[in-house]
Amino acid sequence: MTGPLIDNLQYANWSEKIFRQMRAGGVDAVHVTIAYHESFREMVLNLETWNRWFERFPDLIFKGTTAADVRLAQETGRTAIYFGFQNPSPIEDDIGLIEICHQLGVRFMQLTYNNQSLLATGCYEDDDTGLTRFGKQAVAEMNRVGLVVDMSHSAERSTLEAIDVSARPIAITHANPHWWHPALRNKSDAVLRALTARGGMLGFSVYPHHLRDGPACTLDSFCNMIAEAASRYGADNLGIGTDLCQDQPDSIVEWMRVGRWSKSMDYGEGSADNPGFPPMPGWFADNRDFGTIRTGLKAAGFSGAEVDGIMGANWLRFYEASFGPA
Amino acid sequence: MTGPLIDNLQYANWSEKIFRQMRAGGVDAVHVTIAYHESFREMVLNLETWNRWFERFPDLIFKGTTAADVRLAQETGRTAIYFGFQNPSPIEDDIGLIEICHQLGVRFMQLTYNNQSLLATGCYEDDDTGLTRFGKQAVAEMNRVGLVVDMSHSAERSTLEAIDVSARPIAITHANPHWWHPALRNKSDAVLRALTARGGMLGFSVYPHHLRDGPACTLDSFCNMIAEAASRYGADNLGIGTDLCQDQPDSIVEWMRVGRWSKSMDYGEGSADNPGFPPMPGWFADNRDFGTIRTGLKAAGFSGAEVDGIMGANWLRFYEASFGPA
Repeated sequence: MTGPLIDNLQYANWSEKIFRQMRAGGVDAVHVTIAYHESFREMVLNLETWNRWFERFPDLIFKGTTAADVRLAQETGRTAIYFGFQNPSPIEDDIGLIEICHQLGVRFMQLTYNNQSLLATGCYEDDDTGLTRFGKQAVAEMNRVGLVVDMSHSAERSTLEAIDVSARPIAITHANPHWWHPALRNKSDAVLRALTARGGMLGFSVYPHHLRDGPACTLDSFCNMIAEAASRYGADNLGIGTDLCQDQPDSIVEWMRVGRWSKSMDYGEGSADNPGFPPMPGWFADNRDFGTIRTGLKAAGFSGAEVDGIMGANWLRFYEASFGPA
Repeated sequence: MTGPLIDNLQYANWSEKIFRQMRAGGVDAVHVTIAYHESFREMVLNLETWNRWFERFPDLIFKGTTAADVRLAQETGRTAIYFGFQNPSPIEDDIGLIEICHQLGVRFMQLTYNNQSLLATGCYEDDDTGLTRFGKQAVAEMNRVGLVVDMSHSAERSTLEAIDVSARPIAITHANPHWWHPALRNKSDAVLRALTARGGMLGFSVYPHHLRDGPACTLDSFCNMIAEAASRYGADNLGIGTDLCQDQPDSIVEWMRVGRWSKSMDYGEGSADNPGFPPMPGWFADNRDFGTIRTGLKAAGFSGAEVDGIMGANWLRFYEASFGPA
């Protein structure tokens, strides 16, 4: 069986069109965001919406909960959908909800989304106090049940502490190195070294605010950055996490940034002049474009096995080690 | 492998003592009530409590979700715990919560608990209008996902309609025939004939209010009643559902009866003179006493295979047909 194609972060405005594009692009598995600022009950409503899609499109998608579901997806010509939270709001202040969410199929949870959470500090706060008391308990419980710690939107100290405190490798599902493009959301060399040294995974983002030159970023620049990352951290702990927000109206990026925590607008990575979703780079518009990245990686000098790893086999190995009980 | 021992309804004040009594009594599986009047979120808190028990006592109990878990329980010397609701309150007014609850491991749901619900009419209402519009949709969805319709506390017409509308056999998990003891909660001959003719199961209750002569009911009387039921309905659709409420304080029977729907006391099957839990009959106090019932069934003339069926094999066959997707 050929290596799987896995995109470890998308938050699209889901539709039959997009599910068919996943199939057209040969995407075997996608980690999809199902909560930003939702309460537990609101997140369950999002699960219900996904259940209806699974019921309606059983020939295109199904709910993935184990690593073996990636192989099942390959064997049956469908896409396995794995759930994740970008914020711990669905567990509220209740550590017992971590296991409940895992039982409902959730496999990734960010400890923060930009702001201070009950668990850790987000990358937009002025001061980073690291993992909270609840945060340390939550990481231990996530380790126990097999819910992956994701620090994509977390601040430096919190991220380093999560890497250190977690008994199992963690993930940064969608970000790029700060040394390539110094966005607040991109990760320091120190974080990426610590992450990968402990077996953690980095998923490269194609969200324009994370790219050098934004939407004008070239495929060469993106793939040469991955080559430099591989030379620094090895190629085995790298994957893709596009952060594809296909077909979303701009009201959604406002929901992501402001949720219900502010009465004023916060532009996050955007600005008053550029408040909406940025246009995507020309070489990646939707799920049919992973072949372009694959070609770019080959041109950047990666071996076939390394390309297969980055395009999915590395995530699959991580899934195998991460989704079951400790 | 010997026939399994299954009690298809208990609502005890759970403790290590009771779990050890299950093991001492050789009980392979128990269907436990996890909600009476709880909202969805409150029911999830009860699931969390069970998750902590499963984590704390992994050598005694585990969560059962498939029929195969009964065999796993036998093989590993533990008791499989299956979840059920005595009222549909946890699905609120949201049909999508049926699948969510099934994904969380719930396998039985009563359409009503004594009162009118959003789905059907309970056995204490003056008028029984049968299944509601939502009720018919809910039964179809329960059929689809594998959540068993339980009509133990429902009124006559609603029960007959549920038997008729449901595409899969339903259950009356804990009740006795009205012809033996004319309690409001016990079931008419018409209901029991319709139920069993469609492959549905009746679980015999030892809750004293359901017994002829109450706590003074003899084992002979109970087992002869089962023999008469077998002669009327066949022995294959009969099982045990003790309704054991071991170690519960009387505040719990008040919660069952009144919930939050009344500011006045409602005594249900009790009375102002006898408001609490009634004393159990001398021959059944806890999970160690199933051997007594087994002996009584033999004395009442059942064959060994029939006794094995009533003590668990019939429920296991029903589980095999009921808990998976349609």
